[in-house]
Amino acid sequence: MNCSSSAFTPTIVAAALGDDALRQRVQSVLDGKTKPLGSLGRLETLALQLALALGDERPKLRQPQLVVFAADHGIAAQGVSAYPAEVTRQMVRNFLAGGAAVSVLARQHGLNLTVADCGVAADFEPHPQLVLLKVPGAEYGSADSTRALAMSAAQCAAAIDNGRRLVDRLPGNALLLGEMGIANTSAAALLMARLTGEPLQHCVGRGTGLDDAGLAHKQAVLERALDRHAEARTPFEVLTALGGLEIATMVGAIQQAAASGRIIVVDGFITTAAVAVAAALEPQPAGLLAHCVFAHCSQENGHARWLRHLGVEPLLDFGLRLGEGSGAALAWPLLESACRILTEMASFESAGVSGRRDSLR
Amino acid sequence: MNCSSSAFTPTIVAAALGDDALRQRVQSVLDGKTKPLGSLGRLETLALQLALALGDERPKLRQPQLVVFAADHGIAAQGVSAYPAEVTRQMVRNFLAGGAAVSVLARQHGLNLTVADCGVAADFEPHPQLVLLKVPGAEYGSADSTRALAMSAAQCAAAIDNGRRLVDRLPGNALLLGEMGIANTSAAALLMARLTGEPLQHCVGRGTGLDDAGLAHKQAVLERALDRHAEARTPFEVLTALGGLEIATMVGAIQQAAASGRIIVVDGFITTAAVAVAAALEPQPAGLLAHCVFAHCSQENGHARWLRHLGVEPLLDFGLRLGEGSGAALAWPLLESACRILTEMASFESAGVSGRRDSLR
Repeated sequence: MNCSSSAFTPTIVAAALGDDALRQRVQSVLDGKTKPLGSLGRLETLALQLALALGDERPKLRQPQLVVFAADHGIAAQGVSAYPAEVTRQMVRNFLAGGAAVSVLARQHGLNLTVADCGVAADFEPHPQLVLLKVPGAEYGSADSTRALAMSAAQCAAAIDNGRRLVDRLPGNALLLGEMGIANTSAAALLMARLTGEPLQHCVGRGTGLDDAGLAHKQAVLERALDRHAEARTPFEVLTALGGLEIATMVGAIQQAAASGRIIVVDGFITTAAVAVAAALEPQPAGLLAHCVFAHCSQENGHARWLRHLGVEPLLDFGLRLGEGSGAALAWPLLESACRILTEMASFESAGVSGRRDSLR
Repeated sequence: MNCSSSAFTPTIVAAALGDDALRQRVQSVLDGKTKPLGSLGRLETLALQLALALGDERPKLRQPQLVVFAADHGIAAQGVSAYPAEVTRQMVRNFLAGGAAVSVLARQHGLNLTVADCGVAADFEPHPQLVLLKVPGAEYGSADSTRALAMSAAQCAAAIDNGRRLVDRLPGNALLLGEMGIANTSAAALLMARLTGEPLQHCVGRGTGLDDAGLAHKQAVLERALDRHAEARTPFEVLTALGGLEIATMVGAIQQAAASGRIIVVDGFITTAAVAVAAALEPQPAGLLAHCVFAHCSQENGHARWLRHLGVEPLLDFGLRLGEGSGAALAWPLLESACRILTEMASFESAGVSGRRDSLR
């Protein structure tokens, strides 16, 4: 099977960008709050974004869902990660047992945590927080993209469809993206190189902690994968040839979340890859990106540059490089704060506070 | 009365820096958690700081107290603020009514909010969240430092003592600093110029939103205040000559919080001024600074530079310039997250997760 997009349902998203009237109303509400104009800085631009994306000048975040999309990667066999591939399934069990960073942070903030098995090399016991989204023929992970397509077009389309259907079943109006998959910084770096045109060395990083020799080896392996799939050019072809199953599933989840008017909280390098693919599949990427809040700029080499390519501004700069959705969970209360500024703060008028001396307010 | 420190009780702080054995134990616990070494970045250094400052490898934040220290400033009569001085008392009422940004954020995070009247030009009705810390002879604010000492040495010492006694009565192990006082960026800029030796233009900013002409006027006024008090050199003399009553009260609060082993969450430019004075009063400033978490780098002109002078790294860079403690409240969940990483995450051993392939972990 070739990697044409023939098996692929056209994108379903035409996410609403807030209309100008709403934007003006929200800005006017913000400006009337008891604070100097613009003095809450990034929290105000976040509040404006959330109001527009949710289409509500009094935005309220309901039943936030953090989903960790997990899968294994054939390219791990090339020795591109500091950790063995078995860590993917071990960490899935750790998420479900509540001991991982993302488990701890989700619990702190009341985020409902779901783990989606998009192709982990394991057969898990049933668990109330585990959903099986394995794809026929790729149940235990993607193929090694240095030797073959990472997945067939049919598998890629099935994974995207899985992601859409998962989100369609989830309650609430906010989706926080997490992921797990040993070697998935390799898949994400390949997607970045092909989608942005950046030289590969701007896209490849140390992942979970490669040393210099490990990084050089990873880059050489990824060069081979890019060479092998030189013909893959459309976003769908690129995803099929180079991407991972958890990334493809996330692409569908992102499409569905945006189409249903939800907020999408993006974590680090891998989840940014999924957003970048989803945006590239859109005729109007801005509509989809308007729903995305980028939680942080990670330490992974390519992340800051990719965020600049997307024209987005992350909330935190914490030097994180863990993934799992840990950064998305960490930043979550900032979104809550932004909503509360709009809905709970007094106005100059209601509080009887004087305006500027020069009446410039 | 001159501004010698004769009326001033020597500092009471000799805050414990965590011992090396504890540091090694905490680092080893962090390194054993199920994540690549150091992959939670700034959250790990924060966790280490909190553990050392609280002297506990399983740190727990209890009954956090946010105090808004409020006072009026004689120098406001020189037209250095975009807002009229009456806004100080109006905002105190807004804090107590629950409508200010800091009220909203404190409510979101379960922070107990107290407003301390350190010299506001008003007589407030009693309120359960209001404490009166007015100083004899300066009940309605400091004097105009372009014409006189901002406060007498006795008043300054009394304000510091008020701050110590307030914190001594507060429960819990964390103090979040907030402030309100029209023209208090002027007082803070003067303190910065004299304490750091930076040229005044590196210290003066737009405060609540001065335009270029307003900024030039503010700088000219502050030059006069500095010239008038050229002889003020010791930290206590500088505070007495140039500082505000809320800043002096905060200095005492910070000393007491550090001496009693609490975490101090610093907000923006004004609260940083109080920490800088408190640190300058210490024989070993590092002991006091070890208790301080700097919540954010504000938009106010001098703040980033002052943080560098203090050698500290703020958590957020959100372009805030509101004060009130709003940035400290906004950042609070990050401190909670840091503690939970230490206390709730599984270790590689307990979770049965494999280590690095190269066994370098």
